[in-house]
Amino acid sequence: TETFSREKYQGNEFAGVVTGLAWTSVGGEILFIESSLSAGKGKLTLTGNLGDVMKESALLAQEYLRAHCNTLGIRKEAFDEWNLHVHVPEGAIPKDGPSAGVTMVTAMASIFTQRKVKKNLAMTGEITLRGKVLPVGGIKEKILAAKRAGIKEIILCNENKKDIEEIKDVYLKGLTFHFVDEIMEVLDIALMKQKVDNPLSI
Amino acid sequence: TETFSREKYQGNEFAGVVTGLAWTSVGGEILFIESSLSAGKGKLTLTGNLGDVMKESALLAQEYLRAHCNTLGIRKEAFDEWNLHVHVPEGAIPKDGPSAGVTMVTAMASIFTQRKVKKNLAMTGEITLRGKVLPVGGIKEKILAAKRAGIKEIILCNENKKDIEEIKDVYLKGLTFHFVDEIMEVLDIALMKQKVDNPLSI
Amino acid sequence: TETFSREKYQGNEFAGVVTGLAWTSVGGEILFIESSLSAGKGKLTLTGNLGDVMKESALLAQEYLRAHCNTLGIRKEAFDEWNLHVHVPEGAIPKDGPSAGVTMVTAMASIFTQRKVKKNLAMTGEITLRGKVLPVGGIKEKILAAKRAGIKEIILCNENKKDIEEIKDVYLKGLTFHFVDEIMEVLDIALMKQKVDNPLSI
Amino acid sequence: TETFSREKYQGNEFAGVVTGLAWTSVGGEILFIESSLSAGKGKLTLTGNLGDVMKESALLAQEYLRAHCNTLGIRKEAFDEWNLHVHVPEGAIPKDGPSAGVTMVTAMASIFTQRKVKKNLAMTGEITLRGKVLPVGGIKEKILAAKRAGIKEIILCNENKKDIEEIKDVYLKGLTFHFVDEIMEVLDIALMKQKVDNPLSI
Amino acid sequence: TETFSREKYQGNEFAGVVTGLAWTSVGGEILFIESSLSAGKGKLTLTGNLGDVMKESALLAQEYLRAHCNTLGIRKEAFDEWNLHVHVPEGAIPKDGPSAGVTMVTAMASIFTQRKVKKNLAMTGEITLRGKVLPVGGIKEKILAAKRAGIKEIILCNENKKDIEEIKDVYLKGLTFHFVDEIMEVLDIALMKQKVDNPLSI
Amino acid sequence: TETFSREKYQGNEFAGVVTGLAWTSVGGEILFIESSLSAGKGKLTLTGNLGDVMKESALLAQEYLRAHCNTLGIRKEAFDEWNLHVHVPEGAIPKDGPSAGVTMVTAMASIFTQRKVKKNLAMTGEITLRGKVLPVGGIKEKILAAKRAGIKEIILCNENKKDIEEIKDVYLKGLTFHFVDEIMEVLDIALMKQKVDNPLSI
Ligand SMILES: [Ca+2]
Ligand SMILES: [Ca+2]
Ligand SMILES: [Ca+2]
Ligand SMILES: [Ca+2]
Ligand SMILES: [Ca+2]
Ligand SMILES: [Ca+2]
Ligand SMILES: [Ca+2]
Ligand SMILES: [Ca+2]
Ligand SMILES: [Ca+2]
Ligand SMILES: [Ca+2]
Ligand SMILES: [Ca+2]
Ligand SMILES: [Ca+2]
Repeated sequence: TETFSREKYQGNEFAGVVTGLAWTSVGGEILFIESSLSAGKGKLTLTGNLGDVMKESALLAQEYLRAHCNTLGIRKEAFDEWNLHVHVPEGAIPKDGPSAGVTMVTAMASIFTQRKVKKNLAMTGEITLRGKVLPVGGIKEKILAAKRAGIKEIILCNENKKDIEEIKDVYLKGLTFHFVDEIMEVLDIALMKQKVDNPLSI
Repeated sequence: TETFSREKYQGNEFAGVVTGLAWTSVGGEILFIESSLSAGKGKLTLTGNLGDVMKESALLAQEYLRAHCNTLGIRKEAFDEWNLHVHVPEGAIPKDGPSAGVTMVTAMASIFTQRKVKKNLAMTGEITLRGKVLPVGGIKEKILAAKRAGIKEIILCNENKKDIEEIKDVYLKGLTFHFVDEIMEVLDIALMKQKVDNPLSI
Repeated sequence: TETFSREKYQGNEFAGVVTGLAWTSVGGEILFIESSLSAGKGKLTLTGNLGDVMKESALLAQEYLRAHCNTLGIRKEAFDEWNLHVHVPEGAIPKDGPSAGVTMVTAMASIFTQRKVKKNLAMTGEITLRGKVLPVGGIKEKILAAKRAGIKEIILCNENKKDIEEIKDVYLKGLTFHFVDEIMEVLDIALMKQKVDNPLSI
Repeated sequence: TETFSREKYQGNEFAGVVTGLAWTSVGGEILFIESSLSAGKGKLTLTGNLGDVMKESALLAQEYLRAHCNTLGIRKEAFDEWNLHVHVPEGAIPKDGPSAGVTMVTAMASIFTQRKVKKNLAMTGEITLRGKVLPVGGIKEKILAAKRAGIKEIILCNENKKDIEEIKDVYLKGLTFHFVDEIMEVLDIALMKQKVDNPLSI
Repeated sequence: TETFSREKYQGNEFAGVVTGLAWTSVGGEILFIESSLSAGKGKLTLTGNLGDVMKESALLAQEYLRAHCNTLGIRKEAFDEWNLHVHVPEGAIPKDGPSAGVTMVTAMASIFTQRKVKKNLAMTGEITLRGKVLPVGGIKEKILAAKRAGIKEIILCNENKKDIEEIKDVYLKGLTFHFVDEIMEVLDIALMKQKVDNPLSI
Repeated sequence: TETFSREKYQGNEFAGVVTGLAWTSVGGEILFIESSLSAGKGKLTLTGNLGDVMKESALLAQEYLRAHCNTLGIRKEAFDEWNLHVHVPEGAIPKDGPSAGVTMVTAMASIFTQRKVKKNLAMTGEITLRGKVLPVGGIKEKILAAKRAGIKEIILCNENKKDIEEIKDVYLKGLTFHFVDEIMEVLDIALMKQKVDNPLSI
C-alpha cells in the first residue's frame, strides 16, 4: 500500500492548520488537521479517510465554536455563510478515534478567526460538548513522535499528566507541556493574537 | 484502544448536562449526557458513538418535551428555532440501549428551560412516548459506580425497587433513592427552580 | 442484556395507546403501541427497535386512515398538519413482523380522533392496504399472555378462529373474542365514542 | 415464523387490487397486488417486504402508464397530484423477481381509472419499459395454485404457451388462457369498462 | 430462478430502444436498452437489476449528450424538462460492467431526437466522458449471439478488430462490422435521419 | 472479466483531460482523468468505479480551486454555475487511493480555465487541502509504464526524488522530471497559456 512517513513540523504560515498527535499500530505519529473556508451556506465537508468517531469530533468542535463565538470574536453568522472543509492528509491511512478533538477545534477556531497557530506546537485530547478536554491513550508514543518531528510544546489533558510522569526525563528534554481541562484553555495557548498574512474577511 | 475511566461527579454549573448510570462489560460507570443549543431550524445532532436504540431515546425525549412544553414552560416554537446537539462523552466507547432515556429527557428539559440540575444526582431508566419510566438492568453495578463517583441521590423506576432491596445496606449507605413511574416525576426531582448563570433566552 | 417483563394491562386513559399481542422466542407477551402528535408537516417517526416489516405496517395503517378519514371523522388535512410518532416500548428488544398491524392502525385512529380505546382489550393481526385483516401465528401463546396481563377481550382475524378452537376451554375462561375480516370492524370494536380527557383539537 | 396460506380468489369490488401468481419454494401461490391513492405530490410507496427487482417492476409500471395515459384516459397531471401506495400482503414473506410486472401495471391502471378488474382473473409476467410482456418461470405450479384458488382466466406471455402445452389437460380444465405480447393487451383483457362503486375523481 | 432466453432481434419501431451485446457466464446474449421520457425535471431512473458500473455508463451517456446536444440538434433545456427512464429487460438477471456504454448513449440519443435506430444493428463498447469508445471483452461469444438473433451489422471499438480477426470466417458470414473510436461515429452509424411514427415533441 | 490495456498517451486536444500514473497489482499503468462541464448548479459527479479515498481527492481538488480561483483567473461563481463531471475510464477496474490527487486538480483547473494541458506529460501525487503535494508509492512501476506509453515529462513530489535515484539510468532515458511541493507548482508546469480550440465561456 502507498503510505509514507512525513515527520517534520511544517510551520504556521496557514490559518486553520494544526499539528496533532496520533497513535497507530506502528507507533506514534504527527498528523495535520487542515481546514479551509469557501463562501457557501455552512456545509461541513470532512475528508482524509476518517472514521465515524473522528467525524463526530468535527461536529463537536463546530458546535462548541458556534456556542462560544462571542468569546472568540467570530460573527455568529459566519458559520452559515461559509462552507468549512476539514481534511487530514495521507488518505491511504484510515483514521479514527476521539483524540483529534482538540486539534480539530483549534484548526476551526484558527480558520474562522484567521489567527496564526503558535509555532512548534502539537496537541492531543478528546473534547466534549460542554468544553471539557478528556485524556487519551498512547501518550508515550505520541511524545516520542512529536520530538522527532521538531515539536517544542505539547498540549495535553490534565488527566494525562500521570502518563508524562512515567516517561524518562531524557525523552522529555526540550519539550514544554501544557495541561488543560477545558477547550478554552487550549485555544488561549494555541491561537496567537497575530493574524496570518492576507487574512480572509470572515 | 484509547479508553479512560473518569469516575467523579462533575457539578451542576451547566444547563443540559445530566449524570447517567451505564452498565458495561467491565461493570458500572457513570456517564454524562451533554446538550447544547444553537440558533437554527430544529435539527437534532447526536454524537458519542451511539447505537440506534440510544438514538431513539433521544427522539422519544424530544417528542415528550414537545408534547409537554406547556407544563414545563417551554415555548412551543423553541423546538423549531434552535438546533439541539446531544453528546455522550468518551467517543471511543460504543454506547447503546434504552437506559439513558431518563437522562436524555432531563438533559433536554434542562437546556430548554436553562434550569440547573439537582446536585450530586444520577439516574437510569428507559422512557416511553406516553411518559412512562421503565425498569432497566445492571442496577447493582450502576449503584456501586454512582457511589464511587460521589453521587448522593439516584432516580430509578419503581419496578427497579426490588433490585435495590437485594443489595447489602453497606453499599447503599449515603445514597437517597427516588422511585418513579413517570417522566414528569423525574423532571420534578431533577430540575431546580434556579436557572444557570447567564442563561440563554430560549 | 437489559430486558424486563411488564405484563399488566395499563388502562385506557391515553389516546393513541393500544395493547397488542406479540409472540417471541420465550413465549407470548403483551406490548403497547404508543402514538403521539405534535404540530408539524406530516412527518412519521417510528421508534422501538422495529424491523422493516413492522415499519411497513405503520405505513399501511397511515395510508388506510388517510383513505378512510371521512368515515372516521378525521379532517383530511390533519395528516399533513401534525407529525405522528409511533413507539413500541422496550427498546432493548428487536421487534418485527406484520402482526402488529391492527394495533398500529387502532393506535393511529385513536390519536387522530382522540377517542378512548376500549378497556381491557388487546389485539393481533396483519393489515392490508385495502383494509383486510389477515391471520397471524402464535395465537395460543398470545392468548395465555393476554390472560396473565388482565386482558378481557381480544380481537383476532376470522381465519385465526380455528387456532382458538384448539385451545382448552380452561385457558379461554374470562376472555371474549372478536373475530374480524376488516380493519373497520376492528376500529368499530376498539374505539369508544368517548374522547380522552383534555383532548387535542386535531 | 408467522406465515399463512390464503388461497381463495377475493372478488373485484376494489379498484387497484389485482390477483397475481407467485412461485415460491413451497410451490405456486396466488398473491394480491393492492394499490391506493391519496392526495399528494406523486410519491410512490411500496410495501410488503419487496426485493429490489420487484420494486423496479413498480417503477416500470408507473412509467409505462405515464407514457400511455392518453390511451387509457388518465389525466397526465394525475400522477403528480396523487400519492400512490402499492402493497403486496403477507409481510412476513419476502417477495422478489420481475414476474409481478403485469399485475402491478394492471393494479395501477385500475386505481388511476377506477375501472373494475375482470372477475376470477389472475396473471403473471415481466414487463418492459416499451410495453412488452416477457415470459416467466414456474408456470405449472402457478396454474395449479390459481385453480385451487378459484381462478377461471389467466393472462400469460405468449412465450409461456409452450409451458402450458406441457401440462396435462385435467389440470387445465375450467381455465381460460390469454396469451399476450404487450402490456396494452393485458389491460384490454383485465380492465372492465365499468367503474367501481363510489369511484374517486382522479 | 426465473430466467429465459429471448434471442431474436425485435425491430426498430420504437425510439430509444437499442440492441446491445452481453457476455454472461453461459455465453453471449443480445440485450435491449430501452428508454422512455416523461415530462418532469430531468430525473434519471435506471432499472433492470443494474450494477454500479453499468449505472455509471448511463451517467456518462447523459453527460456526453448534454455536452454535444448542439451537434445532435437536441435543445439543451430538454435534459431538464423531461425525466429519462432507462431499463434493461430481464430483471431476474443481474447486469454490470461498462460494455453497454455505446448502447446506452445510442438509446438516449434516439429517444431525445426521436430518430429511428438502424435496423438489424447491435453494438458493444465502453464509453468515456470525452467521447472515446473503449474495447470490451467476450467479443467472440457476443458475435455468435448476435448472429443467432438475426443481427446483420455490429459496431465495435477499433481496438476490438483484432478479436474479430481471430474468429473463423464461417461465423462472420452475413455480418457487417463497423469499427469506431468515438461515440459520435457510433451515433452517425446507428441513428437514421427518419423519425419514428408519431414522434414526441421534445 | 472485461479489462484491456490501453497504454498510449492520447494527446492534449481536450481541456480537462490529464494523464495520471497508477500502480496496480499487475504493475504500473497510465490512466486518464477526464472532466466535463455542463450548465447547472455546481453538482459534482464522479464515475469510473472509484473508491472513497479517490472520491475525496476530487473534493480536495475542487475546494483547492475554489480557494485559489483568483490566482488561476477562474470566476468564483463558475463553481456554482456549472456541474462538473469527473470520470476515470475503464469502469471494469476498481480504482482507489490518494495518488491521483495532482491529476484530478490539474484536470479540473484545465476544464475551468479551458487551457490546454502540456503535451506528453503525466503525473502522480497526493494533494492536501492547504495545497501540498505528498509522495506516493509504486514510483518505479509507474515510470516504466509512462515510458511505454510515450510520456516525456513526469511531475512527482519532491519527496519521491529518492525513488527515482534508485532506478537505473537506462529506464529514465528520454524522461524529464519535475519535482514539486505544492499544487500551484504542478499547475504552473502542466497548464499551457494556450486555450483549447473552441473553448467554452466559463
Ligand atoms: Ca505519516
Ligand atoms: Ca486546568
Ligand atoms: Ca469512563
Ligand atoms: Ca410513582
Ligand atoms: Ca415485556
Ligand atoms: Ca366479519
Ligand atoms: Ca399465502
Ligand atoms: Ca399477441
Ligand atoms: Ca436473455
Ligand atoms: Ca475511427
Ligand atoms: Ca489500462
Ligand atoms: Ca519545490
